[in-house]
Amino acid sequence: MATNLGNYTLNLDTSPSLLSFAAVGSKKEAEGPIGKQFDIINEDSLFGQKTWELAEGQMQKIAAEKALEKAALSPGEIKMLFAGDLLNQITASHYGLRELGIPFIGLYGACSTMSQSVILASMMVEGGLINRGMAVTSSHFCSAERQYRFPLEYGGQRPPTAQWTATAAGAVIVGQSSAPPYIRRVCVGTIENKNVKDLTNMGAAMAPAAAQTLSRFFADTGTGPDNYDVILTGDLGQVGSDLLSQLMEREGYKLEGKHADCGLILFDRDTQKVDAGGSGCGCAAAVLCAYLLPAMRKGKVNEVLFMATGALMSPTSVQQGQDIPGIAHLMHLSTSPKAGGG
Amino acid sequence: MATNLGNYTLNLDTSPSLLSFAAVGSKKEAEGPIGKQFDIINEDSLFGQKTWELAEGQMQKIAAEKALEKAALSPGEIKMLFAGDLLNQITASHYGLRELGIPFIGLYGACSTMSQSVILASMMVEGGLINRGMAVTSSHFCSAERQYRFPLEYGGQRPPTAQWTATAAGAVIVGQSSAPPYIRRVCVGTIENKNVKDLTNMGAAMAPAAAQTLSRFFADTGTGPDNYDVILTGDLGQVGSDLLSQLMEREGYKLEGKHADCGLILFDRDTQKVDAGGSGCGCAAAVLCAYLLPAMRKGKVNEVLFMATGALMSPTSVQQGQDIPGIAHLMHLSTSPKAGGG
Repeated sequence: MATNLGNYTLNLDTSPSLLSFAAVGSKKEAEGPIGKQFDIINEDSLFGQKTWELAEGQMQKIAAEKALEKAALSPGEIKMLFAGDLLNQITASHYGLRELGIPFIGLYGACSTMSQSVILASMMVEGGLINRGMAVTSSHFCSAERQYRFPLEYGGQRPPTAQWTATAAGAVIVGQSSAPPYIRRVCVGTIENKNVKDLTNMGAAMAPAAAQTLSRFFADTGTGPDNYDVILTGDLGQVGSDLLSQLMEREGYKLEGKHADCGLILFDRDTQKVDAGGSGCGCAAAVLCAYLLPAMRKGKVNEVLFMATGALMSPTSVQQGQDIPGIAHLMHLSTSPKAGGG
Repeated sequence: MATNLGNYTLNLDTSPSLLSFAAVGSKKEAEGPIGKQFDIINEDSLFGQKTWELAEGQMQKIAAEKALEKAALSPGEIKMLFAGDLLNQITASHYGLRELGIPFIGLYGACSTMSQSVILASMMVEGGLINRGMAVTSSHFCSAERQYRFPLEYGGQRPPTAQWTATAAGAVIVGQSSAPPYIRRVCVGTIENKNVKDLTNMGAAMAPAAAQTLSRFFADTGTGPDNYDVILTGDLGQVGSDLLSQLMEREGYKLEGKHADCGLILFDRDTQKVDAGGSGCGCAAAVLCAYLLPAMRKGKVNEVLFMATGALMSPTSVQQGQDIPGIAHLMHLSTSPKAGGG
């Protein structure tokens, strides 16, 4: 049974495991610092489909099937599927995952979706409501650009605060097991806004939400940055990461040496022309599944805070002059034996 | 602790209660058959806002605040908020509910959102993960028409299979209580598709999903239509309702005299020019909160299946020639004492 810690944090007393995970990417992701760690790379970003939107769904399907294969599970052994993406009406998830035939919960959390979906799956497993759940998300540079910004053919200029949407997907299966990594604690975020209105500066829009969730988690648990090997956010990029450090310092927490951001891990800013870094639901998903979780399995990092962040605007809301709300959901992942948790 | 019934149905052994609920509507909804039962009617569908999108968010906020007021609860006493709507990036929910400051899970289930959100909240309460959850959704005729079909000013003709998007919102608070109505069982749907491609015939797109979920629930529980006072779907409209009856008859279940549809309750097809009936997340939400749940509290109906249905396409997916997948999530609501449940 779960235990409340403070006002916002939930201790998962049974500490469900991340049983299996898989990451799918395309050419630019393959060329990045963690390119060799993806389970599947398809250099043609159409993934054999007719449209970018179907390609994005296909990535989700491939990631989900790979995660199932790695766990030697069939779709029928997954009780519930939590998935979402950046597309209007999350069609990548609907069209990509429908053939799996798993009871489906559609989510929209923008780039926070990987945290949101894994947290929901793990809470459901913790509460004995399902024995296994799967969390899947994706983003695709081509489908996102034309929906949120400009048609690709237009060749619009990008300001240096802009981030580059990853063409990637990740899938995680959650269930009970004695094998780490475990999900020990979760902290679901609230919607925060600090009057940022610039559609090309998502990092600044999301950093206040990240700071809010992280501060609450530290307060609720009586811990601080020193208790963790790494605090991995996604995807604040360089601008948002700098802002998060400043905001946390005001709260009395120094993140230096502990903080990393998925948007700065997936791509090399010096050589890959991604401006402030990577973004998109698929960025945090891929860094979690291709980089962080394998490192935890190998024992390279043991106590980790993973916090995917989302910017909750739409092109319509921005055109109508509204500011950009942000959200951040945090999960504490651990490899230490369950008896020591709590 | 929840118990699995068959492959798809979950018995909520503690049978959480729908503690409080509220419905908000506008002029056309007020003129309909259940118009006098709304908690709040605002005849000006702008709800004091500058845009239809903000108006829709405002409806959600008003519904949520009314549900809180009726339960004498503050936002801080709700552990988690499950909300979504039809707008791109569910901005009605994000902008409308952000001031509540409740940990937020954004959902996209199209018109199935009311079932989806109440089911998630009740599962979380059942599992002891939260003590109270709130489920909120909405739709707005003006924001939906311009996003999904044509600008209002264009005055496009509507075929008779079309449904009329409700301008309405509903909010439900779920928690443990000895007072009915209770949520006894839930059945989360899978994504179904039968190659329907007509954006003006959502009923036909959703009926196969409704039939699938309902058949599974009957099989899992060993029950049939006779075990329930009413089976309320939303929003199949007239076309989808007829199709559901036919599909269920093939499975050996006669729905006659038991089935009703939210889209045919909210509006009067004979006098209100809504073609095949009402639709939109707000339709099922309003009929649940203004009509069904008050009737259960008064003991007029006691064993109810409520199944909101969603069409999971986007305008982009339809323009690209894709078919329209549907989904339906079912919950069994009951007023009979908890000891008799299970």
